[in-house]
Parts: sequence; structure tokens; C-alpha cells
Amino acid sequence: MRVSEIGEDALITRIAARLDRPPAGEVWTGDDAAVIASPARRLLLTTDLLVEGVDFDLSWCRGADIGWKAIAVNASDIAAMGGRPHVAVASLSLRGDIGVGTVDDIVDGLGAASRRWAIALVGGDISGAREVMLSVAATGVLASAPPVLRSGARDGEAICVTGTLGAAAAGLAVLRARDRPEDGFAGLVERQLRPRARVEEGVALARCGATAMIDVSDGLAVDLGRILDASGTGCEVDPGAVPVDAGVGSLARARPDLVPDALEAAMLGGEDFELLFTIDEADLPAAREALLALATEVTRIGTVVAGRASVGDEDLERWRERGWQHLHGR
Amino acid sequence: MRVSEIGEDALITRIAARLDRPPAGEVWTGDDAAVIASPARRLLLTTDLLVEGVDFDLSWCRGADIGWKAIAVNASDIAAMGGRPHVAVASLSLRGDIGVGTVDDIVDGLGAASRRWAIALVGGDISGAREVMLSVAATGVLASAPPVLRSGARDGEAICVTGTLGAAAAGLAVLRARDRPEDGFAGLVERQLRPRARVEEGVALARCGATAMIDVSDGLAVDLGRILDASGTGCEVDPGAVPVDAGVGSLARARPDLVPDALEAAMLGGEDFELLFTIDEADLPAAREALLALATEVTRIGTVVAGRASVGDEDLERWRERGWQHLHGR
Repeated sequence: MRVSEIGEDALITRIAARLDRPPAGEVWTGDDAAVIASPARRLLLTTDLLVEGVDFDLSWCRGADIGWKAIAVNASDIAAMGGRPHVAVASLSLRGDIGVGTVDDIVDGLGAASRRWAIALVGGDISGAREVMLSVAATGVLASAPPVLRSGARDGEAICVTGTLGAAAAGLAVLRARDRPEDGFAGLVERQLRPRARVEEGVALARCGATAMIDVSDGLAVDLGRILDASGTGCEVDPGAVPVDAGVGSLARARPDLVPDALEAAMLGGEDFELLFTIDEADLPAAREALLALATEVTRIGTVVAGRASVGDEDLERWRERGWQHLHGR
Repeated sequence: MRVSEIGEDALITRIAARLDRPPAGEVWTGDDAAVIASPARRLLLTTDLLVEGVDFDLSWCRGADIGWKAIAVNASDIAAMGGRPHVAVASLSLRGDIGVGTVDDIVDGLGAASRRWAIALVGGDISGAREVMLSVAATGVLASAPPVLRSGARDGEAICVTGTLGAAAAGLAVLRARDRPEDGFAGLVERQLRPRARVEEGVALARCGATAMIDVSDGLAVDLGRILDASGTGCEVDPGAVPVDAGVGSLARARPDLVPDALEAAMLGGEDFELLFTIDEADLPAAREALLALATEVTRIGTVVAGRASVGDEDLERWRERGWQHLHGR
């Protein structure tokens, strides 16, 4: 059955049946607004938008991937403040020719990611449109530390990043390739389709004294630039220290048509949703240890400095410009 | 300058410059998530989506109208719970050929409506797309009473509605007419382009003991049906009591090609954002008085009854079916 045949209330009923049930005293779907227990003195609020043809394409991903990612990117934003996501609402626009099964899939993906990060999906809105679009807004709660803003980086601090970079962009290149060479590169594809939000890592880093933090959604160059702009500082980044995902290196060697340069994929690729942060050198060992307890590597890639922002011999600005071009061509 | 020429960060900076500044201790735009003071023990959360070609068309409205409406419909959802809206985030998708001035306009409309209902617009997301889409999510705070759900209607209670109905749909017909007969019908056009949310009315009705409440967004027939479904009750509605907007009557007489039937516009039109509620007859005089203090009329249109839902001699279900057809053809 298609979306255009089922009607809005029937579609909402169908969606609600796939979602979790609220605890006593709360109201989720089915009314004008959700009622939720207010969890904390300070609330975090964020929203992220996925658009068909820009952020995903149903020719290379399933509805469940879209739903998963819409939650993950919001959870990642909350994580990058040092908070835990709490509740979310989703706005979904649908083409009339989309199958109702695809909507079920999207909702299941929303549900799976919500459960993964303990987010209550409490409501939403649907509308007809000429393209599929999924916007999620999520609240978050600060754990024990103040929020980690982008503006807190100070000269002399270490610049670090969790995990590895470039995998999501490489996975996208694999998915878009006509010959679909997924077999050897399932890990990269997974990073594109099922990104993880570093929620516990963000909470731990806030506790360990991270001074500035952002999630790497638009590429290391662009997102590092945002921290430096907000903090009014520069940097010295060692390009050799950037933790390029091993699979990206393999793909670049096997299929240079897909990934011409592994470092470039790591610097510009985006959508890795790793946490990029600055921290006093004295606090770094404890942060590293706290994240190792979560099985997450921390790599120091450089130092915050007054003045110029550089990556090896190059200005960061040149990388940023290429990053923007990359983003707009994506 | 066009959206495709300016770049995301420059566009966000431009947008942020048009928004209000946060109070001390809060962080709004410019970071991964907004940080806001958590206001209450229970939080309301809602989201609503406006899509180009479905909910608006730039051939008959300006960017500022879209921004205004996106906030108003969320405020109206919060009002229909008996709450006051608190903070909001907006997701905006843009065609590349949209002028940056139109984006400024949308943001100004968001800002104007936010100030009108004392909502802090604290952040958002933008993306490219093939159509303009604006999704707002808003939190709300319950005033002094518990939330007024759709499910609380009980047999014997009065069914009432604030203000007048049909004006927004009639305004849409005027806007879409080729000959644009706005001159005599500016009030109807205003109701379509600049809907008001009945926030203080909702708070007052919650305090006066309204037992079920919904905002009339999809038409009286459809939205009344939602209250009855949720409450497991029926109704006797007097079609002669439905408060058809006077301007709708005038338009129906002058231009039956645009509005063939005034009652039908009121029953099926939608987007009036009046509050439809049920209340014990004993509490009705106080509710009426409280709303008159806000210069808002309350009209009793019928009674909640066990069993059949009827509008005069007809089943409400027949009106609902026509309401759905109307919604999908809108």
C-alpha cells in the first residue's frame, strides 16, 4: 500500500504501533504535544534534517538507515555538548508513491537508534511532499559537568579526536559506485549508513575537562575551523597524526577512482560523528583512560596556538575551502 | 544573492544576526545544541512541518508568512495542551535558487511570531533540497493545571470552540484565485497567512476545567473526531451553532466559485487554530467569562453523548470522510 492511499490518521496509528509506550504520567504520540517529565535544571535542544537526494538516496539505503541516522546525528550533537539525549520528536515528509512499508522501515530505524541511545521518541508530524525529508529534534540532559561549548579552546591545549576519520565518506563512495564493491568494504558502508553517536564518550570528556568540543559532521577541517573561530584561536595540526580509518586506506589503494586520497577523505569527508575536542595537556591522560574504558581510542592531532591555523605547512583555511566545496558537491 | 552562492556557515551567521540574544547562562545558536534553563517539572514537546506546494506557495505568500506560521502552529499545539510555549528550534530546507533575502524573511517571520508568543528561538539546521520546507519543534510548560488531553471528554459535557471557523480556508481560496480578490477579504487572507495561537485561552481553559482539548488544524469534523475517538464517546453537534466566520459567509455569497458553502468551509476547512474543547456544563460560564476577558468568544456547538456521533441529522463520520478528502486535495 502506498502513502497516498492510507490517510494521515491511519498512517499515524500505524507508526504509533511501532513505537515504545510511555511511562506513567507521560503522554507521547496521539495528542497535540508530548508530555514528558522534565529531567534537569538545564536542558539541551537540537535539531537535524536529512533530505532525500542530499543526505540519502533510497537507491542505496533503506528506510531503516534513514531513521537510524536521523536519531544518531541528533544524539551526536547532544554528545558534543557533554550531554545525554533524552527525548525526540520527528517530522517526516513523504512522497505519495512511497510504500507504507518504507515508512514502517523509517520508523523502525528511528526506534532502533532511539533504543540504542536511550532516547524516548515521543511524537512527530507527517506531511506530503515531493521528496522524503526527515527532521528530528531532541532534548538532552547535562550529566554532571557544565556544557562543553565550541568556544572554550585556549592556547597550548591539545587537539584530539575520538576513533577514526574518513570512513563514512568512503562508505558513501562505495554505495554510490555503479559496481557496488561492498563486499570488501562493509565496515565503511556501515559507518555511512549506521553512524554511532559518541554519547558516553562525550559525557566522559566533559567530566575529564574537555574545554571545547564538536562532533565531526562536516569534516575535520570545517569542524575544527568552527572551534577555532568560536574560541578565537589558531592551531598546529600534524597531518600525519590524523587517524585515517584503516579501511579508507585500503579502499584508496584498491579503488583510487572512489577515494583518490585517504587523508583528504579524513580531513574533508564528514559524517564520521567522532568527537573533536580540546583539553589541557595535564587532563589528557585521564581522558584517554576514560575513553579506553569505553573501547574508544583518542588521538592527539595537534595543539591550540595563538594566531595562525595550520595543518602541516598549509593553512587550515585552504582545507576549509576545499571542505566547503566537498560539502556542496556531496 | 542566492542560497547556493553563500555557503552554510555564512548563511547561519546571517540568520543568527537576525535572532534574539540568549540570557546569561544559556547558549542558543552557534554550538552543537542549545542550552536552556529547564523551566518546569513537566515538559511539553511538539513539532510541525510546513512543505512548499502543500502548506504554502511562494507565489501567494512571503517568507515572513511561512516563518510566522511555523511558529504559530507549534504554539497552537502547546496551547491545546493548556501550556505556554517556551523554546523552539527550526529546520529549514532550501532550494538553491531561493534568494538569501527570502531566507532573511523566513527568519524574520520566525522571530516575529516567537516574540508574539514569548518563545525563544534557540537554534536550528539548514539543508539544501528541491523544495522549501520548514519544520519547527517547540517545548512548552504547563501553567498551573495538568495537561488537557484529547481523551478526557465525558458524556453530558458541553462541546465548545473559541472564535470563528472557516476563515483560514476561505483566505486560502482567495489567495489561490487567479483574480486575487483580496481587497474585500483581507481579514480572511490574514487568518490564512498569519494564524494566531490561542495560548492564553488554552491556559485559561485548562484552569477552568476543560476536560479535552485540540486545536482546529485539520478542520472541525476531523479534529472533533479525534477527541471523540480518544475519549471513546459520541456527540450531538448542532450545525446551526457552528461559529462560521462572518467573512466566510460574505465570500460565499459574493464568490460561490471560491467558497461554495460557508458551513462546509467551517466544518472542513482547517488551519483556523481555534481551540475545540469539552467541559462540564457547570464550568462553562466561568470558562466563557475567562475567555471574554481575553476578548475571545466561546461558542457551544453541542454535547458529548454515549454512542453515535452526529452533526444534525448526519453522522459525523460522513463529515470526517469529506474532511479527509478535503485535506488531501488541499
